[in-house]
This record gives sequence, structure tokens and C-alpha cells, in this order.
Amino acid sequence: MQRADCIALDEADSLAGLRAHFRLEEGLVYLDGNSLGPLPHAVATRIDAVVNNEWGKDLIRSWNTHDWIDLPRKVGEKIAPLLGAAPGQVICADSTSVNLFKLLAAGLALNPGRRVVMSSNSNFPTDLYMAQGLGQLVGEEHCELKIVDDEDIPAALDNNVAILMLTHVDFRSGAMHDMQSLTRLAHESGALVLWDLAHSAGAVPLALDDFEVDMAVGCGYKFLNGGPGAPAFLYVAERHQDKVRQPLAGWMGHAAPFEFKTAYRPAPGIAGFAAGTPAVISMAAMDAALDVWQQARIEDVRSKSIQLSELFRHLVEANPALTGLEWVGERDLHQRGSQVGFHHPEAYAIVQALIAQDVIGDFREPDIMRFGICPLYLRFVDVFDAVARLADIVGKGVYRDPGFSQRSRVT
Amino acid sequence: MQRADCIALDEADSLAGLRAHFRLEEGLVYLDGNSLGPLPHAVATRIDAVVNNEWGKDLIRSWNTHDWIDLPRKVGEKIAPLLGAAPGQVICADSTSVNLFKLLAAGLALNPGRRVVMSSNSNFPTDLYMAQGLGQLVGEEHCELKIVDDEDIPAALDNNVAILMLTHVDFRSGAMHDMQSLTRLAHESGALVLWDLAHSAGAVPLALDDFEVDMAVGCGYKFLNGGPGAPAFLYVAERHQDKVRQPLAGWMGHAAPFEFKTAYRPAPGIAGFAAGTPAVISMAAMDAALDVWQQARIEDVRSKSIQLSELFRHLVEANPALTGLEWVGERDLHQRGSQVGFHHPEAYAIVQALIAQDVIGDFREPDIMRFGICPLYLRFVDVFDAVARLADIVGKGVYRDPGFSQRSRVT
Repeated sequence: MQRADCIALDEADSLAGLRAHFRLEEGLVYLDGNSLGPLPHAVATRIDAVVNNEWGKDLIRSWNTHDWIDLPRKVGEKIAPLLGAAPGQVICADSTSVNLFKLLAAGLALNPGRRVVMSSNSNFPTDLYMAQGLGQLVGEEHCELKIVDDEDIPAALDNNVAILMLTHVDFRSGAMHDMQSLTRLAHESGALVLWDLAHSAGAVPLALDDFEVDMAVGCGYKFLNGGPGAPAFLYVAERHQDKVRQPLAGWMGHAAPFEFKTAYRPAPGIAGFAAGTPAVISMAAMDAALDVWQQARIEDVRSKSIQLSELFRHLVEANPALTGLEWVGERDLHQRGSQVGFHHPEAYAIVQALIAQDVIGDFREPDIMRFGICPLYLRFVDVFDAVARLADIVGKGVYRDPGFSQRSRVT
Repeated sequence: MQRADCIALDEADSLAGLRAHFRLEEGLVYLDGNSLGPLPHAVATRIDAVVNNEWGKDLIRSWNTHDWIDLPRKVGEKIAPLLGAAPGQVICADSTSVNLFKLLAAGLALNPGRRVVMSSNSNFPTDLYMAQGLGQLVGEEHCELKIVDDEDIPAALDNNVAILMLTHVDFRSGAMHDMQSLTRLAHESGALVLWDLAHSAGAVPLALDDFEVDMAVGCGYKFLNGGPGAPAFLYVAERHQDKVRQPLAGWMGHAAPFEFKTAYRPAPGIAGFAAGTPAVISMAAMDAALDVWQQARIEDVRSKSIQLSELFRHLVEANPALTGLEWVGERDLHQRGSQVGFHHPEAYAIVQALIAQDVIGDFREPDIMRFGICPLYLRFVDVFDAVARLADIVGKGVYRDPGFSQRSRVT
């Protein structure tokens, strides 16, 4: 496989035109869109309009005239098709962490008599922390987090488990749970499921309705390209929505917030899962970022992601300079999310040396270099160039420069 | 008092130059900065830089190179002097509603053996709703919201009250509680205080440390001009911070978030009161909006606010066309926040007719026209022009046009 072959693959790629929607500097290979998606041009334009025209000129009137008040629902409905969710089940709000808290509390109320939130020790920490925070608040007799190894999940689903809470795609290894079978197993044991789709939404096809998922949360700033700290989303299956209240009962989830009554009365449906005033500027950015999906089928994005990942692995494993790198996790690309990773004892320094050469990936403890595969803008030739620079850095020992070992605060 | 007199007052005003920091269309009189502050030019510049340079060019690296990770603490420290708070006690995070939940839960844990959250029926509804949501989650035996009339607060402070939760300045009437004496009364009864400063921060001088306030929350999008849905802030007195955990235990409040450990360990001090990933774009806007306070003393702002309010009331009460308007609430301007209001049976339509003539105030149920007084950009001549247009609208019955009675969704 030569560079010219990769260029030919890009020329034949039906998604190739989408790259033009994103701000990407010439020469940069961006392999960290699973951590922060790049800036869509449409978002820059939209934020400029929201700030300078809507806020700047129309001021408070924009809640009505520019429908700011509808943004959480409108953005939710744009996300829904990517989740395999019929309308009326997704809302954009708060952070993933805060949404997890809402749904953990709601899920426990939906499953009275059971108190265990079960999760895996490979889950993203904030998911575990939020369950711990809830348990500390309501008492272990009402909410106990039980953390097991991934392979022990089926056996551990006993009749104390109220909620099985898992992140669909593992942030370190890229391993993807079998959502359908784990959801079915959980239901058979009487548990509800709460899926964290942080590394799934916009990366792999999802079918929440078909799989009868109960609840889900996800992140706006990764594969959905909503910008740094973009508001998150949550999904609650319609059958559950009006059976339960979530505890963060802020005025924006009230049935009639502008009547200013003293008693909380939840809005019917998914709207009752909002809390405080939405972050309008950030949410408008999310809204604009999602428009690219009018031109991209998630199935095609997934198919290209697998091709790009396969190319990445092939180029690494075929390169004599890179024999010290060891593939992270599952080898079957169909059972992984949209990232590749390699173990190396000097992974941290290698990633820093790559960044210095405009190939941006990231490091995850203890020894993983992680590369996000984002087919909306990533080209085959980018993968070729990234691996070529990686081989140069490792082969020549460039990463041994002591500057590359200095840890940043955010990794 | 003639228009020329107002112009002379503006010419003598030491704060007059600050108006140039804000985007305000020619001819507009903006009296709704207590609902959504106008756009500071510095914010437009900053958002453009964050979007196009930091996100657009530096991408994920900006968490380190542009110190995104420090924004919640940095913005908190800029707010602190406006609250009369020493460093290390304020953080910018989430929405006011979500922050109320954190602090209500923390406050109940700090005051074991007591279960009542006491508040007033004039409080802003979301404050009451969040306490109701918490009570429903943990059970009434652990958290019961008790709502009393304002005048009954002192007598109701019995030994069940864990937290006295009040909004300092009433959103409808503008009435301002005596924070010092109510805090002292609460403490004498063994309760903690949680003050909502939504209509106070940036409007009136505050002295949280001097008054030994325990906890506070507040809003970024009103008098602090942080933009629509700007992130909120919270204050926890240093003496309480490490005695208690807050329940929304997200990774950004962890002592070492990038170690990705499975057990939550709160960051020491105020940093442990953060939850999820901060909304970077909105928080950077807040950061830039706060810089105007380097050129404005809150005491001078307060003094001008009282002068403007006095002028507003004088012009209304002296105008024969406006005898149908009745002053809302407390007449002593030193016992009010930075807003004036008038009752009128047709208040809704009058406010809409004013907006149509570029005088922007708002309506609050059931019959209040409400005008925010924001001395950073409001001129004496603006007040004169606003009352002149109000007199024209009321005197000529302009507001009777049926179009002005059509209710908007957001009022």
C-alpha cells in the first residue's frame, strides 16, 4: 500500500466532499475528533449570528423571535435519527455527567425494590462517579454502585440490579459492547439499561428503539463536533417518560415555566428532563454542527471508519520500525468503535512528538496512544501520512527528546 | 425635570464611559438587562477568538495552551470580589438550578438531624422546584421544603430548619431581603443560609464573607452580561468546603480527573463543586464580560442605580397620563434591587407596545411591567425617553391594538 493508493481511495470515496465542511489547517492530521471534533464552518457562521445578531441586536426578544426556547428539543430531534430513536425521546441539555445523574435517579424510581447500579471497571470514570454521588446522597440501601469486569456482567445480573449502566464504546480500548444482547440480558433479569453513547453517537449506527433501550446519554463535543464543552443529550424511551420524575426539577422542565407557580409540575414527555436555562450559544453551535448529517448516512460513515482503521493497523503492523507497538483490544473491527490504539511503554512521549509534527492523537493511561477515526473529514492519505510520521518518530527515537515527556495537565 | 437636565446628569456621570463597552443599537432603550444583559464588545471579540483560533486552529490542545481547564476557577475568582468573597470560594459551573441542587444537598449534609429547607413563596420558582426535586429523591424525612410568607420567616426558623434558602432580590417586586440580619437569625436558630444572587451579583454591593453567609448561587446572564444561558456560579464558604461532598460528583470535580480512577475523590476546596465538562465557549464569554468590572466600582454602580430608579419613579408619578400605574413593592430604593416595576391591568399589552417603540422591558404575572436598571450602560436620558414613550402609549391608548395582547411563549 503506497501513498498513491491512498490518494486513489480518497478519490473514490463518496464521503470525501464532507471534509470541506470543517476547518482543518493544511498539513494537519487530526486524529482526536473522538475527544474534540473540529470546527464546522457552519458553526462559526452560526455562532457569529447568534452572538452579533440574535444576542447583540435582538437581545431578550430572541427567546421568541429566534426560538431559543425550542433549542433543547430541536437539537434533540436532530440527534435522534443518529441514535435510532423515533421523535419525542431525545433532548439536548446540561453535561453528560449531570444527565447521568438525572437518569440514574429516574431509573431507580422506575425499578422499585432494586437498588444496584451495575457497571464495569472499564467504564468512563464520570459515569461511575455520578452513581457514587447519587449513592452517597440517597444512601447505599437505595443506590449501590457495583463495579464488575466486563466479562462478568451477564453472571452478575441478579435480582438486585436496578440499572445496568455501561458506556457502549470503551474510551481506552475502543471495545464495543453488544448493546442488543446486553440489553436483552438486563431486561430478562429485570434490570433497566442506561447506555452512555459518548463514543458512539455519530460514530457507529445505533438502534435504541429497536433494541428496546430504556435510557441513554451522550456527548456533543466528540463525533458530533458541537464544540468544547458542548451541551450533552439524553434519551428516555417514550414508555417510561411519564411514569417517573427526574430529580433536577428546574424551571425549564416545568410544564409552564412562565406561569411562575411555586409547585413543580413536569412538562409531559422528554421535555420534563430539562433542568435550568440552556446554554444558548453552545447549543446553537450543536444545532449547526448536526446539519452535516443531512448529507451523510451513518452506515456509510461506519463503513469508511472500518476501512480507515484497517488501513491504519495494516500500515503499522507492516512497518519494521513499529514492531514495538502492540494493538489495543479487540481485533475484529466490527466489534470496536471508531478509534484505534497501540500500547507502547513510551506512548506519552510518542504522542507528544507526533503532535509536534502536526499529527494529533492523544494518550491514555497507562501506555496507550489513541487515535480517533472520524470519516467525515479524515482521508486515507491522512492515515498514511500519520503512520509514516509515527514510524519516523519511533524509528529514529525522536520521542526521546526530554521535552516530549513533560506531562500536561490535560492529557 | 426636562430632557436637557437628564443629558446634563449623563455628562456629569463618572460611569458614562462604560456604555461604550456594550453593543446597543442607536435609539434602543434597554431595560431588560436584569433578564439578559447586552453584548459587551469584548465578548464578541473573545468568542470569535475561542471559536476560530482556539477551537478552530489549536483544537484539543487548547485545554492546555489556552487554559480552558482553568476557566471555571478563573471566572469564579473574577466574580468573587463582586460578592464580597475572598479567593477560593467561587466557581463558575452549570446552571443556577443545578448549582442549587448541589448546595441544597451539601447543606443538608452539613446540618445533620435537620431536614427542612425553608423558603419564601415569593422566591424564584426554580429554587423551590429544585428543593422539591431533592425532597422527592431523598424522601421527605430527609428533605422537606417549607414555603412561608416573607414576613413569617423569622418566626418560622425553628429547630427543624436545616437551610434557609432565599433569593436576595425578588424577581417580581425588586424587594431586597436584609441579608445580614436574616443570615444572623438563621445561624442563631442553627440553620445554614443559601442565598440566590441572580438579581444581586453586579447590581448591588454584597458582603458574603462579612455576613458569614454559608452558600450562594447566582446567574451569569443578567447583570453580569455573560450571554444567553451563560454558566452560573456558586459560592461555598471556605469553612464548609472540605467537610462535605456535593452529589453531582462529576469528573471535573475530581482531585485528579486525568488519572481516570474508578473511585471518586473530590478535589479539595471549591474545585470539588464542579461536575461535568465546562461549556468552554459560554464560559469564555463570561470571562470576557467580567472585565468591565476592572473599571467600575459596584458601590458607584449601586449609587447610580438608585438615582436612575428615583428619576424613573418621579417621571412616572409626575406624569398625568400615567396615574393608572401603581409602583410595585418597597418604596425605599435602598431596600430594593436594581429594577423598578408598575402594576397596571394592561401591563402585558403596554410592555409589548413599548417594545414596538424600542423600549425593552418585560412583563411578569399577573400585572407587572418590570424595568431593569443597569447603570453600566443605562443613561439618565434613556430613562427620560422611556417614560416619555410610556406616557404616549398609555395616554393615547396605543397598547389597545389587539396585536399587543397576543402572548408570546417566553415572557
